[in-house]
Amino acid sequence: MNGRKQVDIAQAAKSILEQIPKGAFLTVKDGSRVNTMTIGWGTIGRMWNKPVFMVMVRYSRFTYEIIEKSSAFTVSVPLNGKFKEALAVCGSKSGRDVDKFKECGLKAVPGEKVDVPVIEGCDIHVECRILYKEPLAPEKLPKDIIDACYKDGDFHVLYFGEILGVYEEV
Amino acid sequence: MNGRKQVDIAQAAKSILEQIPKGAFLTVKDGSRVNTMTIGWGTIGRMWNKPVFMVMVRYSRFTYEIIEKSSAFTVSVPLNGKFKEALAVCGSKSGRDVDKFKECGLKAVPGEKVDVPVIEGCDIHVECRILYKEPLAPEKLPKDIIDACYKDGDFHVLYFGEILGVYEEV
Repeated sequence: MNGRKQVDIAQAAKSILEQIPKGAFLTVKDGSRVNTMTIGWGTIGRMWNKPVFMVMVRYSRFTYEIIEKSSAFTVSVPLNGKFKEALAVCGSKSGRDVDKFKECGLKAVPGEKVDVPVIEGCDIHVECRILYKEPLAPEKLPKDIIDACYKDGDFHVLYFGEILGVYEEV
Repeated sequence: MNGRKQVDIAQAAKSILEQIPKGAFLTVKDGSRVNTMTIGWGTIGRMWNKPVFMVMVRYSRFTYEIIEKSSAFTVSVPLNGKFKEALAVCGSKSGRDVDKFKECGLKAVPGEKVDVPVIEGCDIHVECRILYKEPLAPEKLPKDIIDACYKDGDFHVLYFGEILGVYEEV
């Protein structure tokens, strides 16, 4: 990464929201354990007078183990079809079994505002500190969502992160 | 309203996220009871493979009474300083005490996808059906947020709405 150009979250929102269904990297760190996983869901906005990015992590994930011990996360968003294979691998393999960074040739570079790295080469990076987290309440979810997303009972925990920085790689 | 031009939520996100801190109208309906209130917070994104808009309503609000009996809401977003006074009134007065539509000269026109009106003259309208709702868990909020937003104990309930339609007025 040569440099980081700070951008406004509203400005970046279009690109991020367009890319999210195709995948972005959610990166977490606890001590020496670093992992990244592909996310296809997430929301951006404003809560408690702060810019907020919400991500969702299933209990079964290695990322869950790590983020539960952390107070921050980053989201790195590749645009224009970049990192397509890495997104596929990081969405299907577990960091418990493989070193995804080695396997996919990903380079983790230090975050600016949080002690969690970002994925070099992505177009937009968002750095967040966790303000609030809450597991989904299965009994409150509609049946169509249970059927479509949670047949295996592996529910998500929602993590609401205050956006401390948003920047493009330059 | 002459016409409605469907737009993509990612396209609309920049304008919506820029306006949200300045205010937008959250409108709800239960039978013959219709109310609108000013919101300054909210998030946009993707959850459960669906486009989602999340809004927050405090227990004390008349809107809370109504939305709890409903399955939908709309968000109407005025841009470029429009409706500044109406946003101030609808953020400070309660629909229990005044008819905000009459008081502010607001015209409610039927939604397209949900049985909740939108506020005519706003630039962007978002229509949502509620997928999931969950009260904030006060004991999980950080102290700085409690101090800044909840000293009176009047917490928010989060409403996650599937975005069924986004359009601009034309």
